[in-house]
Amino acid sequence: MPQPPTAPAALAPAQARALFRAGLSTPTAGYCAGYAQANLIALPRDLAFDFLLFAQRNPKACPVLDVTEPGETRSAVFDGDLRTDLPAYRVYVDGRLTEETTDAGAAWRDDLVAFLIGCSFTFETPLIEAGIPVRHVETGTNVAMYRTNRDCRPAGRLAGPLVVSMRPVPADRVADAVRITSRYPAVHGAPVHVGDPAALGIADLGRPDFGDPVEVRAGEIPVFWACGVTPQAAVMASRPAYAIAHAPGHMAVTDVRDSVYQTP
Amino acid sequence: MPQPPTAPAALAPAQARALFRAGLSTPTAGYCAGYAQANLIALPRDLAFDFLLFAQRNPKACPVLDVTEPGETRSAVFDGDLRTDLPAYRVYVDGRLTEETTDAGAAWRDDLVAFLIGCSFTFETPLIEAGIPVRHVETGTNVAMYRTNRDCRPAGRLAGPLVVSMRPVPADRVADAVRITSRYPAVHGAPVHVGDPAALGIADLGRPDFGDPVEVRAGEIPVFWACGVTPQAAVMASRPAYAIAHAPGHMAVTDVRDSVYQTP
Repeated sequence: MPQPPTAPAALAPAQARALFRAGLSTPTAGYCAGYAQANLIALPRDLAFDFLLFAQRNPKACPVLDVTEPGETRSAVFDGDLRTDLPAYRVYVDGRLTEETTDAGAAWRDDLVAFLIGCSFTFETPLIEAGIPVRHVETGTNVAMYRTNRDCRPAGRLAGPLVVSMRPVPADRVADAVRITSRYPAVHGAPVHVGDPAALGIADLGRPDFGDPVEVRAGEIPVFWACGVTPQAAVMASRPAYAIAHAPGHMAVTDVRDSVYQTP
Repeated sequence: MPQPPTAPAALAPAQARALFRAGLSTPTAGYCAGYAQANLIALPRDLAFDFLLFAQRNPKACPVLDVTEPGETRSAVFDGDLRTDLPAYRVYVDGRLTEETTDAGAAWRDDLVAFLIGCSFTFETPLIEAGIPVRHVETGTNVAMYRTNRDCRPAGRLAGPLVVSMRPVPADRVADAVRITSRYPAVHGAPVHVGDPAALGIADLGRPDFGDPVEVRAGEIPVFWACGVTPQAAVMASRPAYAIAHAPGHMAVTDVRDSVYQTP
């Protein structure tokens, strides 16, 4: 396995992907500053229509950045090999995790359609630049994510609840956080909810369903954004015959600058 | 056939649809002021994935407002019967127009997936309200549409050129027209081109490929928007085994207010 780079933020996307292809397995937070990272899910052609429809019907949770043709392993937004150039993959058979690997070349099948889904990493940079603290970045933990009591619009075999990520925001910066993130509709956009976990059916912020808990301090408001785990959870609940996804936090580093996903 | 209403703009969408269901066949321009109208195309499940992918890859030309499940005849944005509640339909077999009818109930098949695609009628109202003349509305003709020399990103079996609509805009209002229409990304959004037909491969503005020519007066600039004919043209070029579409200008009147498609 190659040595981790000393300055991952300064790498170009192709440089980072070469390290991952050579076997480096690492979370990608902080890699390739200014370039968008994406969730990967590759599904058999047969399930791909349901997935694309689920995304179309639930765009805040499932912002599609690109979709490959069946069997393609390169994307318009990712000039690398989707089978090898992410740092880690998970392979699912009949909805069960069967393998975690740094090289999905052997597991990839010719009928797979790969989806690249936007990731809220993209709007965290402008939040931080605006002086809005992002706690889980400060603590070096994973973002806290929760299943809600809101159902997504189903599509074919796919159904499930909206999953949200939560970031505590100082009360006097909530409006700024809304304003800034609403400029990024391709990466979840504006919050879906501000300030009342119970209204979303979240009983205890200290016990997230995915990721790590973060402290909500006095004077801070929990702010909830639609989360890219939503479509993955719906897919896995449908027990797909076959699926390959990135390992959590081990994202696809795209060639697209964050700014491209910013609306004017 | 029912009598045409005396004040079509004042009708609620359900009222207009009841007239169309009863057999009234009329272009829908000017109907149900403030409610969005949509292009309809219904395709076999087998081709639906390619179509949805084509739309995802060419969002300016193919803004998807809603997609039904196979066999569904009602949509989240259209609380009527898609088979009967448009004023006129066209039925295609093996890519050839075989029938034009006011009632597609007999032609509809259980495997059809219906797509409702945004329509630039929605942004013409705010243009006119801002004092920007819309010539083809003034003259009561169809908008002028042109095939361009720009290829869409293909998807599966679907490929074809970008088709644009053109509206002449006074030079001192072009910036306003850009600003206003960019607020409506779900109905084609900002122009794709301003002022140079030759750069799009359009040899003669007086000879549109679809619709009617309009005069471009001294001091006016031709402004080009991506057009919903783009996906229809790509579908028909692929010679689909079966398809049902609205007849040109005879749109689906939805229950969604225009303002819903306006970004903040």
